[in-house]
Amino acid sequence: MTRPVALFFDIFGTVVDWRGSIAREARERFGETFAGEAFADAWRDEYQPAMERVRTGGRGFVKLDVLHRENLDRILPRFGLDRLTEAERADLNLVWHRLDGWPDASLALRRLGVLYRLAPMSNGNISLMVDLARHNHFHWDAILGAELARDYKPKLAVYRSGCDALDLAPERCMMVAAHTSDLVAAKAAGLQTAHVARPDEYGPGKGEAAPSAPVDLAAHDLDHLAELLEC
Amino acid sequence: MTRPVALFFDIFGTVVDWRGSIAREARERFGETFAGEAFADAWRDEYQPAMERVRTGGRGFVKLDVLHRENLDRILPRFGLDRLTEAERADLNLVWHRLDGWPDASLALRRLGVLYRLAPMSNGNISLMVDLARHNHFHWDAILGAELARDYKPKLAVYRSGCDALDLAPERCMMVAAHTSDLVAAKAAGLQTAHVARPDEYGPGKGEAAPSAPVDLAAHDLDHLAELLEC
Repeated sequence: MTRPVALFFDIFGTVVDWRGSIAREARERFGETFAGEAFADAWRDEYQPAMERVRTGGRGFVKLDVLHRENLDRILPRFGLDRLTEAERADLNLVWHRLDGWPDASLALRRLGVLYRLAPMSNGNISLMVDLARHNHFHWDAILGAELARDYKPKLAVYRSGCDALDLAPERCMMVAAHTSDLVAAKAAGLQTAHVARPDEYGPGKGEAAPSAPVDLAAHDLDHLAELLEC
Repeated sequence: MTRPVALFFDIFGTVVDWRGSIAREARERFGETFAGEAFADAWRDEYQPAMERVRTGGRGFVKLDVLHRENLDRILPRFGLDRLTEAERADLNLVWHRLDGWPDASLALRRLGVLYRLAPMSNGNISLMVDLARHNHFHWDAILGAELARDYKPKLAVYRSGCDALDLAPERCMMVAAHTSDLVAAKAAGLQTAHVARPDEYGPGKGEAAPSAPVDLAAHDLDHLAELLEC
């Protein structure tokens, strides 16, 4: 393995806990008995279909914030929340900008950043990444990903746009994700790949504890990745 | 004046000392008697004409690194440097990635970053900005500017692409530059403007000691800007 120069991170699920964060905020807003996890899952279920229309050219590129908002409007009636005002919906939509990192994320990124260039390679838009970084004290070298590429992962052009932005051949970049599908695509784009186990991402035991396809590195968490990468 | 949310920085001349840095490195490479400042000036003189072809549509967008390299090849014969190999030229071209900040820059940006989102709004490409940040310990929230917009300042779309990326109306963003022309364009795009005096940018006494058109703030340096912005 050639040492990579840059590490690209999937964010939702890999670096931040979208499900727990959304469930917590939903319960704060709608009461302790609100089905926060089911709400988070329903919202996230709309994620791939919404991006797929952009990927297939059925719709021009729009930021993920726009898709999240449309998806929110679609699921609110199912949770008895049709009454939410425009302002309440707009503010609730920004919960994605306030997601909490997994406990290991912030310090492990600090370690990794000493030796490697770090960038999100996320489908989240630039402002969302900026807000998550401020919220969690992440330091990125640049915000790469969907908004720069104006298309969504796992399209290969998205990964490659990040390599191009840093003037690096794909094999000098390593994609880090908790989702095998993301890593399979990154590998097809020529990047090195590192899997991070997030076994509870979709609920206890409902996440990837290990990759289901070959990867260059497989880590228990981001601290372990820092060890594997000799930080 | 409404308090801005984000500060956008011109980089070459405003945050880093391109002329002094290039002159120093040129003398290290070509000897103490080499005309380092004249070399830096000649290289920089090619900068605006090269970008103008992109701005006017005579050429598709290419990174500033590409323009810098073409401009370097153009001026080398004038300095008796035709003999430089391809590898030497490629490495010399990266001097733009190694420019030193003005003495006030790094700490003042740290202060400003506590209260404001900070981003380069430069014609330099993303990798160049990433390298300058690593070299000088700058922390940016995102790298905005020409490569994201795929056009060059002072085209108004470049400033606006930065505001759009952060989901901010232009009036919530402040352009910070040592060049009145940059600020006049930013103001036309709807941004607030702050001038930073760099009276020695082009040589002793050959820089803007004050703005020559109305701006919202005029600072002696970036520390003074931090004071004016109540950091």
